[in-house]
Amino acid sequence: MRLGELAERLGCELRGDASIEVDGVGPIEAAGPGQVTFVANQRYQKYLATTRAAAVILASDAPEVATASLRCADPYLAFARAIEVFYRPLEVAPGVHPTAVVAASAAIGADCSIGPYAVIGERVRIGAGARIAAHVVIYPESTIGERFTAHAHVTVRERTVIGNGVILHAGVVIGSDGFGYVAEGRGVRKIIQAGNVVIEDDVEIGANATVDRAAVGSTVLRRGVKLDNLVMIAHGCEIGEGSMLAAQVGLSGSTRIGRFVRMGGQVGSAGHLTIGDGAQVGAQSGVANSVAAGAVVGGYPAVDITVWRRMVAALPRLPEVLRRLRRIEKRLGIAQSGAAGGGED
Amino acid sequence: MRLGELAERLGCELRGDASIEVDGVGPIEAAGPGQVTFVANQRYQKYLATTRAAAVILASDAPEVATASLRCADPYLAFARAIEVFYRPLEVAPGVHPTAVVAASAAIGADCSIGPYAVIGERVRIGAGARIAAHVVIYPESTIGERFTAHAHVTVRERTVIGNGVILHAGVVIGSDGFGYVAEGRGVRKIIQAGNVVIEDDVEIGANATVDRAAVGSTVLRRGVKLDNLVMIAHGCEIGEGSMLAAQVGLSGSTRIGRFVRMGGQVGSAGHLTIGDGAQVGAQSGVANSVAAGAVVGGYPAVDITVWRRMVAALPRLPEVLRRLRRIEKRLGIAQSGAAGGGED
Amino acid sequence: MRLGELAERLGCELRGDASIEVDGVGPIEAAGPGQVTFVANQRYQKYLATTRAAAVILASDAPEVATASLRCADPYLAFARAIEVFYRPLEVAPGVHPTAVVAASAAIGADCSIGPYAVIGERVRIGAGARIAAHVVIYPESTIGERFTAHAHVTVRERTVIGNGVILHAGVVIGSDGFGYVAEGRGVRKIIQAGNVVIEDDVEIGANATVDRAAVGSTVLRRGVKLDNLVMIAHGCEIGEGSMLAAQVGLSGSTRIGRFVRMGGQVGSAGHLTIGDGAQVGAQSGVANSVAAGAVVGGYPAVDITVWRRMVAALPRLPEVLRRLRRIEKRLGIAQSGAAGGGED
Repeated sequence: MRLGELAERLGCELRGDASIEVDGVGPIEAAGPGQVTFVANQRYQKYLATTRAAAVILASDAPEVATASLRCADPYLAFARAIEVFYRPLEVAPGVHPTAVVAASAAIGADCSIGPYAVIGERVRIGAGARIAAHVVIYPESTIGERFTAHAHVTVRERTVIGNGVILHAGVVIGSDGFGYVAEGRGVRKIIQAGNVVIEDDVEIGANATVDRAAVGSTVLRRGVKLDNLVMIAHGCEIGEGSMLAAQVGLSGSTRIGRFVRMGGQVGSAGHLTIGDGAQVGAQSGVANSVAAGAVVGGYPAVDITVWRRMVAALPRLPEVLRRLRRIEKRLGIAQSGAAGGGED
Repeated sequence: MRLGELAERLGCELRGDASIEVDGVGPIEAAGPGQVTFVANQRYQKYLATTRAAAVILASDAPEVATASLRCADPYLAFARAIEVFYRPLEVAPGVHPTAVVAASAAIGADCSIGPYAVIGERVRIGAGARIAAHVVIYPESTIGERFTAHAHVTVRERTVIGNGVILHAGVVIGSDGFGYVAEGRGVRKIIQAGNVVIEDDVEIGANATVDRAAVGSTVLRRGVKLDNLVMIAHGCEIGEGSMLAAQVGLSGSTRIGRFVRMGGQVGSAGHLTIGDGAQVGAQSGVANSVAAGAVVGGYPAVDITVWRRMVAALPRLPEVLRRLRRIEKRLGIAQSGAAGGGED
Repeated sequence: MRLGELAERLGCELRGDASIEVDGVGPIEAAGPGQVTFVANQRYQKYLATTRAAAVILASDAPEVATASLRCADPYLAFARAIEVFYRPLEVAPGVHPTAVVAASAAIGADCSIGPYAVIGERVRIGAGARIAAHVVIYPESTIGERFTAHAHVTVRERTVIGNGVILHAGVVIGSDGFGYVAEGRGVRKIIQAGNVVIEDDVEIGANATVDRAAVGSTVLRRGVKLDNLVMIAHGCEIGEGSMLAAQVGLSGSTRIGRFVRMGGQVGSAGHLTIGDGAQVGAQSGVANSVAAGAVVGGYPAVDITVWRRMVAALPRLPEVLRRLRRIEKRLGIAQSGAAGGGED
């Protein structure tokens, strides 16, 4: 494809030679002469001068560069669309692979692809256009909407309800038992996890993440929720529309997360909390209390992020604080034990 | 079922209309008119006034409520038993699915169910009553007791020893190689992980958790240990009877955990430590040193939990401490550099 | 085997009876009379007096012990080699199991073992000597070198490039989609993850770990990288030769890790950072900024480890600091509000 055609397809203004041939998209530090690239992060600004890329996607008002450039209001979106232009998807074999075990009572929609050794249980319903890879296991009585994508080794336990356009990456487990026990005599009794998981439209869940079924009622992921790899959602949680949880986040039981919440990687949250709409939680934070809508928190335990940053900046000075205190006390003749000191305490 | 009959089966005192029909258990904020419910946490007390549930399970001495109530000494246990009353388990197909690959030298007990595409290796022994789901892989020479439950995509590596009544959730890996290397020349040499994993009776392990085999000897989970999802047990650890580790906990090699220990989610522990019987470790703590029996610790690194709480409460005041110190030093004419200040240091 | 022969094979000096029969290696606290053992950690020194082991592997200059001993310059390496002497590996069935689904266009090298229900996609190339366990899924167009080991339930997504001698433990996912979305209208648009994963020779990856494919370009693990269980490598990361990441570490997107870096368990790192050659990162640290080559850092957020240790040692004294400040201010007549105090601020 020529650069001029690409600019047109992306709705970008082209500055440079429209006849340059391009055949892909690459990262700025490694892009070759036939590739288009993008400044994904401020840190990569320095590569602009040296990149061998054919062209770079930039904001309309960004400074001029030596290479050709594709200019638009939203370069990140244009970058995403440029990837789509050149992407060559895997061909998926249509139909049900002869080795797949599909229960007689299951109902599979039109235009589905079900891979080798997939197992679809009794009374499962799957909508049209599903792409179910090899070795996916759907337990009985689950209901799945249209355009479902499940990669290898996904497990969907019984009675899960999944909407349209949901993507589950390899190794994801949906509907595993919640971690529930009650003391009985000298031991514990397992609380049967009789609830299920409900996943709304356009949810995507990363590799080897786990979402537990509720003890009673449902664990719920609302429309557009995105979970990264190895995230753990405990029983009875509800995650609001459009919220995004980065890798290795762990939610304890019955956490209520609002809409459009952002959580950094490895965040943990205590149980039975509420995290309000639009809240942001910094990576690795430990959320011990409910978080207000729109709040930005961080730290362990998590507090307002500006308070956390000030604490963190001051912390290395704590040993110095102790030295300065001692000097002052010496000057004032205050004994360090605290027992003496003039009797004024 | 009528409420009167349910009360009788749970051994509860009924306050209200014994003829009300009930058909399930629900969470207090979402329970419908035919459901029994329960106050799982103080935070849900507020829902008591508005719940549409048919009845609520309460302690004998809890205040009166508008709905019918089932009263007993241990409402949490009664709730667990109420779930059992209404639970409709999945039917499990008896016998060995024709697609399962069971080695000729394997010995499978009576009344086992082995699902599609399960693979049972040479010389494996499995006791009576196993429920082995689709796609479970048991490597050779493992020995498993009675009433074994393994969900889809469980992997049990060779020479694992498993007791009775053990439950492994989907994606669990037992007996993977420990992380062991020794420096050799300019690189490292892999230390063959020649030991195994021993799991005693009534252990339950959550989805996608991993338990590594020992380099020599055994990694051991004692009777009644419960591991939540995505927990990582390194090679050579031993976890004592009845201990419970919440999601995403990670133990380094050769950690010794006593009996009835509780660990919150995402706790990490350094290697070769001992954590005593009955100790409790707060969520996300980093355990850098051994913990005494009965101790309650928290923080990063973990210390006595009351010390940790006091530290955490004081931390946001650290910037203020610096300001106050400066003011005092100014008053006293102490130079901030610490170089001056009267020469008394 | 007699102890004398073992000493010879390990290149150790024997102190004790060369005719003692030994048949294995055991941990010092549990080794039986026929076993050789080793002091893996200072904490186990105490067991030297009471071990029932036939012999212990020790440094040449370690004090004399009551049992027989095998002396050498590098006892840890001798221990690793002793395990190899006695290790009885599982027999692996040669050839392709009849239930494996191998695409007609796939090219499988000599002496490969492919287990039951493995699925090898179109145009995959696998070098000689592979040991592919049951239920491994290799997506189309991946290229794998010689002596590949993949345990049960491994998933290798399309277009992955893997070198020689690579080991993937059970449940590992290579090449899952990176976590990439761009805002579009009121929602987000998935950024197609069009790149791949490149894994060089002698890499080993622990159970249920995940390595995401790049959006564009490649996620790269250089020669000899070792990842422990449940590690998460985000899209576009590059990990240098010989670096070792302990369990549950999580790297955000485009992290650049140098050669021979060591990371403790549960470390998290922010995106687009550089961690220099030979750096060491303490367990559970949160790396928020780039780390210089050779630096040793720890804490949350991570700082120089000696700074962190001093902070951590001082932290429990913070409540005491507040008390001492109050006493000083009282003595000086400084009002605590900070509003008064003599007007010198």
